[in-house]
Amino acid sequence: MRVLVVAANPCEDSFTHAAARAALDGAERAGHEVTLIDLYALGFHAAMTAGERARYETDEPIIDPMVAEHADLVRSSNVLVFVYPTWWGGLPAIMKGWLERTLVPGVAFAFTASGKVEGALRQVRHIVGISTYGSPWAYVKLINDNGRRTLTRALRMSCGRRAKPKWIGLYSMDSCGDQERKAFLDRVTHELERLD
Amino acid sequence: MRVLVVAANPCEDSFTHAAARAALDGAERAGHEVTLIDLYALGFHAAMTAGERARYETDEPIIDPMVAEHADLVRSSNVLVFVYPTWWGGLPAIMKGWLERTLVPGVAFAFTASGKVEGALRQVRHIVGISTYGSPWAYVKLINDNGRRTLTRALRMSCGRRAKPKWIGLYSMDSCGDQERKAFLDRVTHELERLD
Repeated sequence: MRVLVVAANPCEDSFTHAAARAALDGAERAGHEVTLIDLYALGFHAAMTAGERARYETDEPIIDPMVAEHADLVRSSNVLVFVYPTWWGGLPAIMKGWLERTLVPGVAFAFTASGKVEGALRQVRHIVGISTYGSPWAYVKLINDNGRRTLTRALRMSCGRRAKPKWIGLYSMDSCGDQERKAFLDRVTHELERLD
Repeated sequence: MRVLVVAANPCEDSFTHAAARAALDGAERAGHEVTLIDLYALGFHAAMTAGERARYETDEPIIDPMVAEHADLVRSSNVLVFVYPTWWGGLPAIMKGWLERTLVPGVAFAFTASGKVEGALRQVRHIVGISTYGSPWAYVKLINDNGRRTLTRALRMSCGRRAKPKWIGLYSMDSCGDQERKAFLDRVTHELERLD
């Protein structure tokens, strides 16, 4: 399968990057074709521009060549993997902006003649979220895990029922030790290796 | 009271801007002291930078003078108003990034000696969300209204129980007519005018 890993963390030596590498390792071991989009390393522009907004519902909603390249990668991927730290209960702005600018009409979904929204990512078989949280699991549940919901509900609607969501979270990040972090990375590799 | 309106839409002639003006009108009519932060007009940088991330848990997490100015406004505001279009079920990236970069430790919350998080915006009495949605209300509920939850749950935790959340949503935005839009703007003005 084709696996696309989208990662967001401004610090190159972050645990997010370690988790992204663990995901890439697992997918490669299983023989998948793997691509990494490291949003910060690419200098991805987070906020949708006025030009993009104005063209959102036209046949050519994408202006930025980097966004066009990412949209092509999304269209040809069977597995979408998102790796990020949960901030303010959700996706980092740069990753939220990536969804807004890349997963536009004609890429992730289409408007039908009756004005309904129809998913366009039928080739996607897995959506995998890998996130770290400062808060413990119970608090995340209470406040609401917005990143997880965006990816496993809203994005999944674009992929169809065949797409399986998988969530791999490291909670209470700041108080967990090296052993727990190592175990988490091993789990990430293992989960990516066993996708079918 | 001091009212801070934070608005996010890349197009100056957007309905978001009309709604922000309606909110400002209402608050001014009630005699409040009003400030507008128009994120796109200010060229606000959406994504937290590596430097900010590295300093996040220090005593000086803010580097950008614009962010420092916004943090001061937040600290002295009794009403926080957010006006935005809901995209991918949540806050536009630029507004999500504003939360991440502005509502940092020492502004919105503090870490206690035992490592717990304590809200620091005790002067906030109202959190008002004003959002437009492409989808009908029932669909928004099904997929989850992440922007609303971030503001009325996560942010509210920083403000304490005294802060009252108020939500003003315009659903099925694309199919509603001029009359409905006008009524919505009137409602926004009215709701802001009657805050106490």
